[in-house]
Amino acid sequence: MNVSRPAVHPVEVPPLMDGNPENLQRLRMKDIQGMPGTPGGLTLRLLQFASGVAALCVMVSTSDFTSVTAFCYLVAAVVLQSSWSLSLAFVDIYALLVRRSLRNPHVVCFFTVGDGITSTLTFAAACSSAGITVLIDNDLNNCAQNHCTRFETATAMAFLSWFAISPSYLLNFWTMASSR
Amino acid sequence: MNVSRPAVHPVEVPPLMDGNPENLQRLRMKDIQGMPGTPGGLTLRLLQFASGVAALCVMVSTSDFTSVTAFCYLVAAVVLQSSWSLSLAFVDIYALLVRRSLRNPHVVCFFTVGDGITSTLTFAAACSSAGITVLIDNDLNNCAQNHCTRFETATAMAFLSWFAISPSYLLNFWTMASSR
Repeated sequence: MNVSRPAVHPVEVPPLMDGNPENLQRLRMKDIQGMPGTPGGLTLRLLQFASGVAALCVMVSTSDFTSVTAFCYLVAAVVLQSSWSLSLAFVDIYALLVRRSLRNPHVVCFFTVGDGITSTLTFAAACSSAGITVLIDNDLNNCAQNHCTRFETATAMAFLSWFAISPSYLLNFWTMASSR
Repeated sequence: MNVSRPAVHPVEVPPLMDGNPENLQRLRMKDIQGMPGTPGGLTLRLLQFASGVAALCVMVSTSDFTSVTAFCYLVAAVVLQSSWSLSLAFVDIYALLVRRSLRNPHVVCFFTVGDGITSTLTFAAACSSAGITVLIDNDLNNCAQNHCTRFETATAMAFLSWFAISPSYLLNFWTMASSR
């Protein structure tokens, strides 16, 4: 006798996959260092803030940066980026202190959009400053009349800031995409 | 008599959620225009290629672009980006002709990494060229001796190319993240 269907034996009913995204989210998300609300995320934010402020201070310390539009734009971009990173660093500190998760889809979406905008602006500012620095230093050999070293340092700091904000952006984007 | 457990009635066993990403992927992926293997994706690739080639031609038509490092870098970046976009346009045409899906996780990962690298390089080149163009035009008012209009057109074309490659990159990244 071969009675294989229907299943009348006592069976352990497996968890229902009811298509609710909340369930999928809870199953799939892991606590990757660098995400908002983790010590790695806070470290990245502080690194972004520190290198942004360093770029700002070095650029402002040159007297003639206002004569070049790209350098003024660099100052504006790193001011925006440092403010954003400092704000999110405070949010991270709060989340770590009260052990609260920042996995709300709306919060992650807001962080992703903000990170995307600030990182793009900082990268654009760093690239345009780098173009002008290379023009003054290599193409025109005109470093005697310009603060080449300071311009280069400020540009390098802006790039460092972009390097630090990119993992935050990619991790937030990844979290947003995988929770949908 | 209250016999509620274990379940001995014939039950319809719901689909198992065994954690296999293939199952999740099949459930969650949609055919968004702009993804590889769609007409929208092919249009984006052709737009990237066309604007990259336009930037290249306009920049090369100026005789003195080699004297500025950033303009040489722009030429190199748009050559790389146009080649990449043209290759992927052929892949898209093939996929559309034989009605084949390009949803293999390894293929999507390869496309994402390639798009990420080429879009970053193109954007960096466009920004550095924009910095120098603004320096020559606005800060130094030296357009009489330079091909300002052509430099600006080439920069604008490179930005257009970056605008066209960004949706491809973000959609591929989204696909990669949501299929994990």
